[in-house]
Amino acid sequence: MRLVSASWQARAAAKREDTLNKIYPEWRLSPIDLARAKEQRNLTGSFIQQFLQTEEISIISRDSIGIVDAIKKGELTAVQVTSAFCKTAAIAHQIALERAAWLDAHFSATNSPVGPLHGLPVSLKDQFHVRGVDTTMGYVGWIGSNLGIRSSLDAHQVESQITTELLSLGAVLYCKTSLPQTLLFAETKNNIIGQTLNPNNQHLSCGGSSGGEGALQALRGSTLGIGTDIGGSVRIPAAFNGVFALKPTPERLPYRCVANNNPGQNVYRSTIGFLSTSLGGLDLLLRSELSTKPWLRDPEVVPLPFRDDIASEYESRANPDGTAKASAKPLKLGVLWTDCDVQPHPPITRGLRIVVEAMRGAGHEVVYLDFSNHFEIGFKEAEIADLAFLMADGAHDIHTQLDLSGEPLIPDLEASFQLRDPINLLQYQDLTVKGLEYESAYSDYWNSTADNGGKYAVIMPAAPHAAVIPGKYYHTGYTEVINLLNYSVVVIPVTKANKDIDVIDKSYEPSNELDGLNWEAYDPEIYDGAPVGLQLVARKFEEEKILSIAKIVVAALETARKGVPTPLV
Amino acid sequence: MRLVSASWQARAAAKREDTLNKIYPEWRLSPIDLARAKEQRNLTGSFIQQFLQTEEISIISRDSIGIVDAIKKGELTAVQVTSAFCKTAAIAHQIALERAAWLDAHFSATNSPVGPLHGLPVSLKDQFHVRGVDTTMGYVGWIGSNLGIRSSLDAHQVESQITTELLSLGAVLYCKTSLPQTLLFAETKNNIIGQTLNPNNQHLSCGGSSGGEGALQALRGSTLGIGTDIGGSVRIPAAFNGVFALKPTPERLPYRCVANNNPGQNVYRSTIGFLSTSLGGLDLLLRSELSTKPWLRDPEVVPLPFRDDIASEYESRANPDGTAKASAKPLKLGVLWTDCDVQPHPPITRGLRIVVEAMRGAGHEVVYLDFSNHFEIGFKEAEIADLAFLMADGAHDIHTQLDLSGEPLIPDLEASFQLRDPINLLQYQDLTVKGLEYESAYSDYWNSTADNGGKYAVIMPAAPHAAVIPGKYYHTGYTEVINLLNYSVVVIPVTKANKDIDVIDKSYEPSNELDGLNWEAYDPEIYDGAPVGLQLVARKFEEEKILSIAKIVVAALETARKGVPTPLV
Repeated sequence: MRLVSASWQARAAAKREDTLNKIYPEWRLSPIDLARAKEQRNLTGSFIQQFLQTEEISIISRDSIGIVDAIKKGELTAVQVTSAFCKTAAIAHQIALERAAWLDAHFSATNSPVGPLHGLPVSLKDQFHVRGVDTTMGYVGWIGSNLGIRSSLDAHQVESQITTELLSLGAVLYCKTSLPQTLLFAETKNNIIGQTLNPNNQHLSCGGSSGGEGALQALRGSTLGIGTDIGGSVRIPAAFNGVFALKPTPERLPYRCVANNNPGQNVYRSTIGFLSTSLGGLDLLLRSELSTKPWLRDPEVVPLPFRDDIASEYESRANPDGTAKASAKPLKLGVLWTDCDVQPHPPITRGLRIVVEAMRGAGHEVVYLDFSNHFEIGFKEAEIADLAFLMADGAHDIHTQLDLSGEPLIPDLEASFQLRDPINLLQYQDLTVKGLEYESAYSDYWNSTADNGGKYAVIMPAAPHAAVIPGKYYHTGYTEVINLLNYSVVVIPVTKANKDIDVIDKSYEPSNELDGLNWEAYDPEIYDGAPVGLQLVARKFEEEKILSIAKIVVAALETARKGVPTPLV
Repeated sequence: MRLVSASWQARAAAKREDTLNKIYPEWRLSPIDLARAKEQRNLTGSFIQQFLQTEEISIISRDSIGIVDAIKKGELTAVQVTSAFCKTAAIAHQIALERAAWLDAHFSATNSPVGPLHGLPVSLKDQFHVRGVDTTMGYVGWIGSNLGIRSSLDAHQVESQITTELLSLGAVLYCKTSLPQTLLFAETKNNIIGQTLNPNNQHLSCGGSSGGEGALQALRGSTLGIGTDIGGSVRIPAAFNGVFALKPTPERLPYRCVANNNPGQNVYRSTIGFLSTSLGGLDLLLRSELSTKPWLRDPEVVPLPFRDDIASEYESRANPDGTAKASAKPLKLGVLWTDCDVQPHPPITRGLRIVVEAMRGAGHEVVYLDFSNHFEIGFKEAEIADLAFLMADGAHDIHTQLDLSGEPLIPDLEASFQLRDPINLLQYQDLTVKGLEYESAYSDYWNSTADNGGKYAVIMPAAPHAAVIPGKYYHTGYTEVINLLNYSVVVIPVTKANKDIDVIDKSYEPSNELDGLNWEAYDPEIYDGAPVGLQLVARKFEEEKILSIAKIVVAALETARKGVPTPLV
């Protein structure tokens, strides 16, 4: 164990101070503005924009594609773009601006971009190593290093593979975003910077574990960011903050040299994922990243280039407004209203209905999936298996990291992660077999319901509620089961909770204790304005397919919004 | 535990009797011929052919491609082909002939084949479930079932996914081949049918664990068979029996519903592989199998169809005689003479030299790889990690199967597989990290030596000896390290041990105890005539590439044989 030279509280405070000092004085908010911000329910839109110039607002209102195009056309420079985003994110780093200046110089000199992300600011969850910069992963004991305990001599020298690839693509890495202690928490809270709330509604959580990414994008402090997901950690923050996310199958993107909780637990795998303010951003980053052939450097990545044929096979089935083409087979979506364990709150059910009606209105087919009747392996058992993997080592790795500084577990995690004996290897191997059996059973189910095996996606909740009230996230099964199956998912924002429409249904009879707790936690007043995001799910390695389907769904939603008002209740 | 109604000896004897009864009386060998066979060193070629008709010899002398084509042209029928192979294999099953008759009837009626394998007899290692047939996997306790202990009610009902796919492709599944108890042994010996020796030289082992496949193909009792490989089990029998093999990366082919040793140990993975009397057979089966899209049924399979573009990228670099095309970049091969742990015997070193000279003679480039100087992670450490995975459960699964009948471990395995406590989960997870680190380190090394990252393959030994003297297989590191790395490999036969050329080098100083044991075990008299097969190794999921390179190497070897005599010493 490393010697601890200061109390964990002192070290965390110094890190907060240090982070603040990286912000230009003229960009810092006054104590009065900070107090005002605290009182706001919603920080997005007009509140944050009062601190920005018109030109800056115009920049941060664009999505990733709009920014890249404007730079290519010479309408904006990388410095202008990065300045606007750094200010908005309020953590402008000198290093990022230097990088942007270098990119601008390169573009002036050669008249060609460094790569497809030339000049685009990309934010990183604080799990990704950038040379010269801390990676804390939410642990006080990691402050001052970017490798945790592993090799303190090399601190700040290591770089995650995807970091290197992003730089080669021309991206500007300008900020790192907060995450919860242990990563295994669906809110964002640690002993260094405390709790991150939801900018859309400060009564609510921004979700987790890539919660800093979600919150930053809600404020348009970033159009594109990178997170990780082992139980919903990319999808939950996207859904809670009203932005888009892509969670691919684990072996699609390089995890090499990315800090992680208990890396030896590699049976039930974490995956890299993207959050973005647009589908175009997700698409751009996936194409760009795969163009670097990451499998040549990270042997865990499967050599699958971006498959344009699959993308266009699906995209070609609809018109730009999302309506089915007369000449093509309409899309077929399944809808999962509930996992038959914990019933989603009214805003989520309404969100699903909006999608179903928009897709049917656009001429596509939607069928109901009923796992309670048709599927012998429930989501519940799969969720239990997931949690067992995460708990298998008896929180050994977590306590190794906590002990570096002496910091305690945050109160929310005290019950789950007390140090105890790891489970027996034979149990762990039995659990492995169980996971494989679930994957096979779901595959059979999928084949039994789909046309032509695979021409199918499912729309389902990301959680049984909109952005959650802190401390009331009782059931992460809607996202976790997808990790066990290693499926590819796109999260899309659909609507916002509305107290006038999403009223409490007092007739609902909860089917179990968790269901009751969740149902009671719904308060239309508190939830009002909370984003409702949903998961669009496809099978393993179907990232191109699910992105294309998401484009059609989003276009159909837009068309439905513009057209005859969709019945809302 | 199941009640054992008869002694394990009696049950094994009944199974042998039952297997014999499946052979047509007129195809059984007389006691005199059996005694003569026992005295032969070499059973292949003229010895086995004395029991066959001229027409049968003509059929079994063809390779998979020749057979499929002859059936398509109407020159042969599936019954003729199957009869010849069943007789040769001496385990003709009524069921296989019925299947063949059905295929012939289908072809007569429709004039089109059922699939690309129409009428082709394909042999299966006794790990693959076929409905209605036993799968013993070498355990007495599994006799009478095809699921081992798992669900005896469903015995003989389950079918491996790849079995179903082979049938859909038109294959005739006509025999199952022997394998060692536990699968974790590089020879072929169990308590049911005893030991399988090498048909080329009955002083030697046929290798293992897919040893029955190798021996059967040496006798041309099959042109194409399916095995599995977790430490060399497809590659070793191919090398020892003078036939070809393909060991792909684990997630390329479906393992679903295939019996396996300790299926919960899924970190260091077993993979399905093919053995064939020709490269064309391997190519045909890989293309055919992938054409069924196995990933739609087995979610562990990566959705990679056969990539013709990769195959032709490599094949187009040489003329049909293997010589480099003037218009294309020559191939670049690395050669690994030794793993710096156990020095290969003289026949293996000569085999490597034959390949190096043939490839250089054909205008390709060959560079020497020296892991002792250039590579900090030795093969040795990787081999130790492999073995640790296989041992991790303390032989728990093995003893569960042995206890079903009360049979003992075969003497060769007594020392390795005594029942003991499994290792601690934290050690197992550390081992997992170590495995991932080896993969990354080898990837870096590969990138550092290869042109354009990936345009590269390595020729190396499959074992430090030709087909081994039973009981003298001291070092399986040459194949095991490849499993840890999950690389794709083709084994090619190169030459045979020759006592007049491959003389003992008495000046060699062994570097360690194992090296000494192996070096002493080389006896030119005993080894004379033993096949020498070598591994051609490429990276993960490069099956098309390594098959194409193997075609060029084999063509270059053939050209060298025909041309100026290659210097042999």
